[in-house]
Amino acid sequence: MPAVNLAQKLSTFSDHWAPRVVTEFNGHDVMVVKVKGEFRWHQHDDTDDFFLVLRGRITIQMHEGNVDLGPGELFVVPKGVQHCPVAIEEAHLLLIEPRGTPNTGDQATAATRAVI
Amino acid sequence: MPAVNLAQKLSTFSDHWAPRVVTEFNGHDVMVVKVKGEFRWHQHDDTDDFFLVLRGRITIQMHEGNVDLGPGELFVVPKGVQHCPVAIEEAHLLLIEPRGTPNTGDQATAATRAVI
Repeated sequence: MPAVNLAQKLSTFSDHWAPRVVTEFNGHDVMVVKVKGEFRWHQHDDTDDFFLVLRGRITIQMHEGNVDLGPGELFVVPKGVQHCPVAIEEAHLLLIEPRGTPNTGDQATAATRAVI
Repeated sequence: MPAVNLAQKLSTFSDHWAPRVVTEFNGHDVMVVKVKGEFRWHQHDDTDDFFLVLRGRITIQMHEGNVDLGPGELFVVPKGVQHCPVAIEEAHLLLIEPRGTPNTGDQATAATRAVI
């Protein structure tokens, strides 16, 4: 049962918007992801969406107002709320979602979740 | 919908082994806690136990073997596994557990979870 070193896991890949599963927790995938640029507007009807910034900065755009996050800051997008994350420079995030949740809100366009 | 700054939340209290809820996520409490010294041996029969170290170092003692964690390292104690966290110096953690989970594994001895 090894510890998960998030920086080490993040050092193993360089692509953006492609979460990697680092462990599991109560039916949820715990993931790291590198992001840069704008994602896409989407929503998750059945799950809240957990973001913790590990490095860099992101803005979670929402119709209700934007939330800016830096290192050590987290935000939970409530289920059903449309959002679109954007990062001007590369940022590193910890994400937690129920296992199998499509990152785009849509299985057809979702990134595959590799386990590392 | 404000961002949660974990360091700011941690600056608002100084007691040990008394988690504060900073937000909620899919029926789970997201908490910060300051720890120092040895907690107690316990287990959670129905939930995994999520630890992410934000500052300092902890050891999660388990009969199956110990896990040492530093900043940016996380570990999930599987449900049913007896464990006892210990920190030689003060450490700051992010914890995630189903809402209402007693931190000792026992409602009678559990710390109250204040929301900050």
